[in-house]
Amino acid sequence: MFQAIVSASTLRDALDSVSVLVDECKIRLNEDELAIRAVDPANVGMVDLTLDAAAFESYEADGGVIGVNLSRLEDIAGMANTGDLVHLELDEETRKLHIQIEGLSYTLALIDPDSIRQEPDIPDLDLPATIVVEGTHLDRGIKAADMVSDHIGLRVDEADETFHIEAEGDTDDVDLELGRDDLIDLSAGPADSLFSLDYLKDMNKAIPSDAEVTVELGEEFPVKLHYEFGEGMGHVTYMLAPRIQSD
Amino acid sequence: MFQAIVSASTLRDALDSVSVLVDECKIRLNEDELAIRAVDPANVGMVDLTLDAAAFESYEADGGVIGVNLSRLEDIAGMANTGDLVHLELDEETRKLHIQIEGLSYTLALIDPDSIRQEPDIPDLDLPATIVVEGTHLDRGIKAADMVSDHIGLRVDEADETFHIEAEGDTDDVDLELGRDDLIDLSAGPADSLFSLDYLKDMNKAIPSDAEVTVELGEEFPVKLHYEFGEGMGHVTYMLAPRIQSD
Amino acid sequence: MFQAIVSASTLRDALDSVSVLVDECKIRLNEDELAIRAVDPANVGMVDLTLDAAAFESYEADGGVIGVNLSRLEDIAGMANTGDLVHLELDEETRKLHIQIEGLSYTLALIDPDSIRQEPDIPDLDLPATIVVEGTHLDRGIKAADMVSDHIGLRVDEADETFHIEAEGDTDDVDLELGRDDLIDLSAGPADSLFSLDYLKDMNKAIPSDAEVTVELGEEFPVKLHYEFGEGMGHVTYMLAPRIQSD
Repeated sequence: MFQAIVSASTLRDALDSVSVLVDECKIRLNEDELAIRAVDPANVGMVDLTLDAAAFESYEADGGVIGVNLSRLEDIAGMANTGDLVHLELDEETRKLHIQIEGLSYTLALIDPDSIRQEPDIPDLDLPATIVVEGTHLDRGIKAADMVSDHIGLRVDEADETFHIEAEGDTDDVDLELGRDDLIDLSAGPADSLFSLDYLKDMNKAIPSDAEVTVELGEEFPVKLHYEFGEGMGHVTYMLAPRIQSD
Repeated sequence: MFQAIVSASTLRDALDSVSVLVDECKIRLNEDELAIRAVDPANVGMVDLTLDAAAFESYEADGGVIGVNLSRLEDIAGMANTGDLVHLELDEETRKLHIQIEGLSYTLALIDPDSIRQEPDIPDLDLPATIVVEGTHLDRGIKAADMVSDHIGLRVDEADETFHIEAEGDTDDVDLELGRDDLIDLSAGPADSLFSLDYLKDMNKAIPSDAEVTVELGEEFPVKLHYEFGEGMGHVTYMLAPRIQSD
Repeated sequence: MFQAIVSASTLRDALDSVSVLVDECKIRLNEDELAIRAVDPANVGMVDLTLDAAAFESYEADGGVIGVNLSRLEDIAGMANTGDLVHLELDEETRKLHIQIEGLSYTLALIDPDSIRQEPDIPDLDLPATIVVEGTHLDRGIKAADMVSDHIGLRVDEADETFHIEAEGDTDDVDLELGRDDLIDLSAGPADSLFSLDYLKDMNKAIPSDAEVTVELGEEFPVKLHYEFGEGMGHVTYMLAPRIQSD
């Protein structure tokens, strides 16, 4: 049993955060929240999303799992205007999801959850540095790195108490330095890791520009990015594996 | 003899309604109106346009016929700003159309009308259902149908007094239901026909979003779409042949 | 030695005026101005740019020459917001240009100036007609010509005291007539020349829409286009070779 009503913008933010990594996913319809965990085909990037029951206008679920085509569901959510509510109802017998938006009814065929890649376990890492940064700063650093390289470095300078988003190209280098005044919070520690820029660009696309992003970082360790949406009732954690530094 | 002055936006609305179906057309320069009838190469969609002499700032014509390249004429009209007036004057000897827009003179070579496909007779059908709907609703239904299929169904539910824009895909279905409250007017009757979505999408592109569209519909019969522009002095009727339903 | 601070918008206007003709250029870091001269690979279009020291927030230079990749430098300037200041500093030893914009550091590898095509001498022509026209009028004439031809004619009618931007296509013609009322200034003289539209379109892209453009013109002679930017402290002169008229 699953029946819910949610604002189109909250639904879109939720779907976007997952669709940057995978085309299909399992959605867990837990009693108190909707939850998605997914990993990209190359096992480099993971996402862990929860949307609390309180984020919905109404929410009733009993723990089922459905498989969905994300781009299809995003297209449907895209038919709604910003203020519109989206009604979702699962038909257990036909295994179809009925979606209603202001007089528009859409019947979405679901995918067998067993045919979808297994949900990953997001490792519980204890990373030494934590940076809280505005989404716009992160966006600026990623755009700058993209001018010179396919890789991006995230680094904390413990002495200066600064966070660096940097990239080294064949001839040119770029470095965005963010100090205490630019950051929302900084808990410095030994942290310097290199990542694939493509993945971080995709994750960044889903992060609302007004979001506060918590970055957990170590030395040649995965990075965790955490942000909230839906008035704090939607939670996204991305984890991205590091590239080996070659210098 | 043909000499006329018309607002750029009225001219553009007129040209757009025809150019979605054909690249070239005959324009009849009647004494009291400018008139175009055209059918697409596959004989599936027809358009019948009239623009009253009163829609022009000034209009003088004596019943000639000219052949024009529509995209060329649209490009020229596109050079005008919204408030600009377009001056049109036919040079009978050179068979060229002189177009003037705020100091810009354009000399357009005309096409021999005899080389253009014959104008269709728009059949005078007596269709059992008539729906008057806002252009924005039609647009929404067409966009929704486009997510799942190449065909679109238009149907009246006589019992519920509702108009349905619907489509059946391989796995997913979509149905926009418009009741009396959503419609400007409904004269219910037995009406359920299937159409090629490509044609309806093209016609829909030309319909101004604030237009009221009158839809005349039957059972497996052509649909007629009628709307006005140019402050009610321009009239467009589209007719679209049905596709055979397969169920 | 070179160290300067300049507004992002002034830097962008300067770079754009040169990058429409060439990919790489020499920049002369004179004591009282930054100067660029360049000619396109086909030797058809030339640009002569100077940006006075007064156009900078601060400017220190001693006459060096650097070679730069223009699109790279434009990308970096594109990272700045409109109000941002761009800090430029030359590292003589590493031959790299350090660029700083609001916490973002970019290290740009320079190009050996000797590997860049030689700077042209801009001939000092005494052309018989001078027209001063708003950038928007020039833009309109170029767009109109582009509808019918690959060439564009610029002509002064001495008797009517009008400036004509015109083009002859295979079947259609276009003529934008600008009289004394449309022009900022006109010093009439015998002037009628034909140019490649592609070059003029590129030059026009760089001209700010609110610029006053001074056009110097003769009979089958090159045209000179002059405009200013950066509050009158940046100066651009384009020179474009004529095409031979065939009538």
